[in-house]
Amino acid sequence: MIVAIAVLDTSNADFEAAFQRKLHWSAETDHAIEERVAAIVADVRARGDAAVLEYTARFDGVDAASVAALEIGADELRAALETITPAQRRALEAAAARVRSYHQRQLEACGRSWSYRDEDGSLLGQKVTPLDRVGIYVPGGKAAYPSSVLMNAVPAQVAGVGEIVMVVPTPRGEKNALVLAAASIAGAHRVFTVGGAQAVAALAYGTATIPRVDKITGPGNAYVASAKRRVFGQVGIDMIAGPSEILVLADGSTPPDWVAMDLFSQAEHDELAQSILLCPDAAYIEAVRAAIDRLLPAMPRAAVIRASLEGRGALIRTRSMEEACEISNRIAPEHLEVSSREPGRWEPLLRHAGAIFLGAYTSESLGDYCAGPNHVLPTSGTARFSSPLGVYDFQKRSSLIEVSEAGAQVLGPIAAELAYGEGLQAHARAAEMRLKREGEVQ
Amino acid sequence: MIVAIAVLDTSNADFEAAFQRKLHWSAETDHAIEERVAAIVADVRARGDAAVLEYTARFDGVDAASVAALEIGADELRAALETITPAQRRALEAAAARVRSYHQRQLEACGRSWSYRDEDGSLLGQKVTPLDRVGIYVPGGKAAYPSSVLMNAVPAQVAGVGEIVMVVPTPRGEKNALVLAAASIAGAHRVFTVGGAQAVAALAYGTATIPRVDKITGPGNAYVASAKRRVFGQVGIDMIAGPSEILVLADGSTPPDWVAMDLFSQAEHDELAQSILLCPDAAYIEAVRAAIDRLLPAMPRAAVIRASLEGRGALIRTRSMEEACEISNRIAPEHLEVSSREPGRWEPLLRHAGAIFLGAYTSESLGDYCAGPNHVLPTSGTARFSSPLGVYDFQKRSSLIEVSEAGAQVLGPIAAELAYGEGLQAHARAAEMRLKREGEVQ
Repeated sequence: MIVAIAVLDTSNADFEAAFQRKLHWSAETDHAIEERVAAIVADVRARGDAAVLEYTARFDGVDAASVAALEIGADELRAALETITPAQRRALEAAAARVRSYHQRQLEACGRSWSYRDEDGSLLGQKVTPLDRVGIYVPGGKAAYPSSVLMNAVPAQVAGVGEIVMVVPTPRGEKNALVLAAASIAGAHRVFTVGGAQAVAALAYGTATIPRVDKITGPGNAYVASAKRRVFGQVGIDMIAGPSEILVLADGSTPPDWVAMDLFSQAEHDELAQSILLCPDAAYIEAVRAAIDRLLPAMPRAAVIRASLEGRGALIRTRSMEEACEISNRIAPEHLEVSSREPGRWEPLLRHAGAIFLGAYTSESLGDYCAGPNHVLPTSGTARFSSPLGVYDFQKRSSLIEVSEAGAQVLGPIAAELAYGEGLQAHARAAEMRLKREGEVQ
Repeated sequence: MIVAIAVLDTSNADFEAAFQRKLHWSAETDHAIEERVAAIVADVRARGDAAVLEYTARFDGVDAASVAALEIGADELRAALETITPAQRRALEAAAARVRSYHQRQLEACGRSWSYRDEDGSLLGQKVTPLDRVGIYVPGGKAAYPSSVLMNAVPAQVAGVGEIVMVVPTPRGEKNALVLAAASIAGAHRVFTVGGAQAVAALAYGTATIPRVDKITGPGNAYVASAKRRVFGQVGIDMIAGPSEILVLADGSTPPDWVAMDLFSQAEHDELAQSILLCPDAAYIEAVRAAIDRLLPAMPRAAVIRASLEGRGALIRTRSMEEACEISNRIAPEHLEVSSREPGRWEPLLRHAGAIFLGAYTSESLGDYCAGPNHVLPTSGTARFSSPLGVYDFQKRSSLIEVSEAGAQVLGPIAAELAYGEGLQAHARAAEMRLKREGEVQ
């Protein structure tokens, strides 16, 4: 056996304990990081551009005369499109087009203003408007993901955000052409080569050069995550992501190699990533295990994959597909593949997941890059209460209320009764003043 | 002059500085509170019911034999309906019915699953599902607001949440019949008389008696707010609210007494509440000022109103209604009254507000209690990026992707190209394995 991945069985007495050990992951707060980030955020808030320049020199090894010199202009972004290969450019453009088309449907389905009039002629509803300006954090250096640029910027653009400000660190000045090309294709309005907590602080509070935004989205390291948590409230933020996870629910009908590679595709992200297979068929589980052993040696990231699978992976035999669905709901996975001949039979049983990939042809990787739906998904069980990044994250709602004169006569006494009950007499009086009888005697 | 409220004029040279001073408010973090809350949360997480019992005895003066003894059963909730006056009961029921009807429309407008098939027959969409279980925090003691029970529980109920668990402290054992009646009407499934950080921790982690929830909403004091911040990520939370605010945009056509009382109705909440009037008509501003002086002495909460208006209130003369709209957008107020003969003329100019109240008859207090829209709204300028509490806060979305065999042939090469570009070879291989050509040569 090459890979010592855990093989569990729900019928075993010790299953629950072993399962809990595999699932356990908690975002330990690193107080040293928190304190350093607090200092950086306060410094950028107080000193603006000067602080941003200093931290960029210190952490990224980039010396610039001004923050303005760290901005990448539209020309340079467009030029990046010529630097990458034609095949890369076509792939980026095709992916962007599909992601845009999906989020356009999302806008139509759930992002429009609505209103109605009640029987008294009062208007009630909600006005949905885009955010004025958002900041998108894009990691730089080794883990540069142009697909993240698309997944963050495109929904913002579809929502109608006025200005999209992207920040991306360029350690030692190295710019990633694929990332810049993606920014050009996705329609980022301004791009600054700054990163880390200092970039998050600059976006949250604004500096003389970097505009203050209303919301910051996008992944980053522990410093970026801590800075986002710290500025939350001053600006909106998206979820703070934990390690990535895949759960494959298999009935044994998909080629085992495909499932093994899908497990690898999560495991290759990092050693804390989690890949779990749930299947009622012991022979199939053994076939996937054998495929893992056979396919691993050829993978360039074999060491990471092995560490992830051995540390956090599991192949779990369940009593039935129904039980597999129940366990999946307990995990609330980020990515959930239903690798079954009858995905439509199991999908209604699945209540909690960031994204559900149905059928053998739907590898998670197709969704990660280009199927259309967003790849920014809730991790660590937060799919119990949160959702994929979407157009709705770049919009906000304002309630609309226009009470007619007739409506005020009906609502006034109700509001006054409740307001007096809460001891808020001015609330009551404001409602009563709009009553006709009251108006007459005034 | 009885009330020394600031009167400002946008044409004055010192306007900007004076305006900024009025607006300034920042949620100072109280480290002493944070540390005490951290200890309470950790203790409840570790010791469960025993810790909840101890803190409830210490902070609320309520000694109980068990946490189970702190639960209020359905019978006792129903009995509360008989304790309040018939007028109160009718008002609560009428308000609940209108709030329910509005949120039902909201569910129809933006809370339904959707999907489509692309040209390759692949299915794309999102499944929208209610949260399994939510916790609603209701303040107890002096500031007991039955309307908050309705505004939190009704949208959860409309969303289809499986179980609504309400917590409400009862200092010295005093139960508020209006709050219990509201819980009964709004459909809370379980009610525990616990409060403070210990209640938030119990809901976030679960105890032997209090079930773990997926999200916690509802207002509370600094301890509750700090505890919600701390458990965020473990569970979802709603916004952490700052002081309440009203901004009235007036063209001078509404009776000045009405506007004065609307300003009072915000100011009476607490001394940090903010009431601002924007109006281009100096004579009207003077009339409102005079109305404030005339009406204040009769208000039971005159002292609080005066402190709020003098500390944080302002009557601002603008050059025009257009300028008033611009200033309103800078403030992004929680409540925005457009007290004008032509509210429809100004509404399109207003981009940021929690709720917009249109026309002279739409007092904020009608919206606070019974017009239908939610009264839980973004404060402190967060309307720039966040929204009223709604059905959507009690739902989450899962992306649905079912790639057809034909779709996999189109998407595979795109995904593989991008995955290789990011150095994620297993992602690429997982996509390539689904290609027919690849399948043949395997």
